[in-house]
Amino acid sequence: VKRNIKLTIEYDGTNFNGWQIQRAGTRTIQGEIEKALHKIFNEKITLIGSGRTDSGVHALGQVANFLTHNTRLSTTEILNALNANLPEDISILKSEDVPQKFHAQYSAKRKTYRYCILNRKERCSIQRDFNTFIPYKLNLTAIQTEAKNLIGRKDFRAFTAANPAERNASIEKNTVRTIYKFQIQKKGAYLYIDIEANGFLYKMVRNIVGTLLEVGSAKLSKGSVKRILLQKDRSLAGSTAPAKGLCLIKVTY
Amino acid sequence: VKRNIKLTIEYDGTNFNGWQIQRAGTRTIQGEIEKALHKIFNEKITLIGSGRTDSGVHALGQVANFLTHNTRLSTTEILNALNANLPEDISILKSEDVPQKFHAQYSAKRKTYRYCILNRKERCSIQRDFNTFIPYKLNLTAIQTEAKNLIGRKDFRAFTAANPAERNASIEKNTVRTIYKFQIQKKGAYLYIDIEANGFLYKMVRNIVGTLLEVGSAKLSKGSVKRILLQKDRSLAGSTAPAKGLCLIKVTY
Repeated sequence: VKRNIKLTIEYDGTNFNGWQIQRAGTRTIQGEIEKALHKIFNEKITLIGSGRTDSGVHALGQVANFLTHNTRLSTTEILNALNANLPEDISILKSEDVPQKFHAQYSAKRKTYRYCILNRKERCSIQRDFNTFIPYKLNLTAIQTEAKNLIGRKDFRAFTAANPAERNASIEKNTVRTIYKFQIQKKGAYLYIDIEANGFLYKMVRNIVGTLLEVGSAKLSKGSVKRILLQKDRSLAGSTAPAKGLCLIKVTY
Repeated sequence: VKRNIKLTIEYDGTNFNGWQIQRAGTRTIQGEIEKALHKIFNEKITLIGSGRTDSGVHALGQVANFLTHNTRLSTTEILNALNANLPEDISILKSEDVPQKFHAQYSAKRKTYRYCILNRKERCSIQRDFNTFIPYKLNLTAIQTEAKNLIGRKDFRAFTAANPAERNASIEKNTVRTIYKFQIQKKGAYLYIDIEANGFLYKMVRNIVGTLLEVGSAKLSKGSVKRILLQKDRSLAGSTAPAKGLCLIKVTY
């Protein structure tokens, strides 16, 4: 009997070359988990992630699934065996049996990302791999006003990678996505940007955040987000915000 | 004219051998800041901390002061020069001129520490240098009941380092301290223990947390904290909780 196992995964992306297996010798989250799976199940297993995360991006709730012919182990045993065989910067939070048709990428309905900014004059020391440091003053009202224009079903072409070679072509022919929630919270010197959507284009969150940072520093004027969305031109949007401030919080199915 | 400068300091304690300068070759927070001060002021300066923090302990608001004959620089210039010359795991948050009599250690009225625990079965990956991972179930009610007995003016002899050689003898002849606030908050899988006191003995917070963790896992029974305080015997208290969960939040003058 073939089983389909769904994993919920937390990781510190700092020392990885992102989620996806690339050329040999690079350390990736998918690669480390597949290595552990191979050890545990003694068969070659391909892990399907809900999507890639870039080098330096973290996750509190990435989801992946894999098929196995091994039926001996309970889901708890799989969870424990994986955590025992994985490096300390990956932790499996959950292991579940799911129907054969479940596919971590294609079955995903929504994703939530959080972007963390430390906004003060003095740079970050503690937890500096998990925050992006912005030393200049940000106009939070301007950011919030512009961000409202991103909510809903829109063509986010202007917010995906500029270089077509960088893109995941199969996913990104259609650049229309729906943002359900866009929340900005200020807690002390920290700014948390939470975005929930039915899917994200490659580098979309980081490009949106980069654009909003330029709105906040008045490099981009009022109405910019609306104009950028309409003109669908990546060169009009802000630069890509650093990876380390980004965290994949949740994938909903 | 001699000036007395007060610094408020944030640091990631992970890669330091604690606050205090020890033998040559060890990396300490005091050592790194004194090195930067020497470079900026071109004179040998001794930095007085509010107290030591151990290897691996972090700070969001450590305070220190130093005397200098250099009067050219404004406090903002001192702040910027220090941050430009310090490694990325130390950040100076504030620099102020204070009266000559201000002494970061002797003038301190209160200190607040936070201890962070990740309490779940699956180990920590993200921000693992800032949390202590406890895989077993904790009885929060028992912990809170016992913790109440620590509040007030008490002799905390049982909660200081067991080995007298480890102690800072000059401070610890008197082991009576007053805990003003003891707050335990649960947020998801995280447990935050905030303790405010007029001072702390060497390893006092970590020994208190270690003891409460044994209360929470039923290794220590109800009434233990009261008994340990009365008997003043270190060997009755729990083991020392790991350094990495501890953070010096604030020093009040």
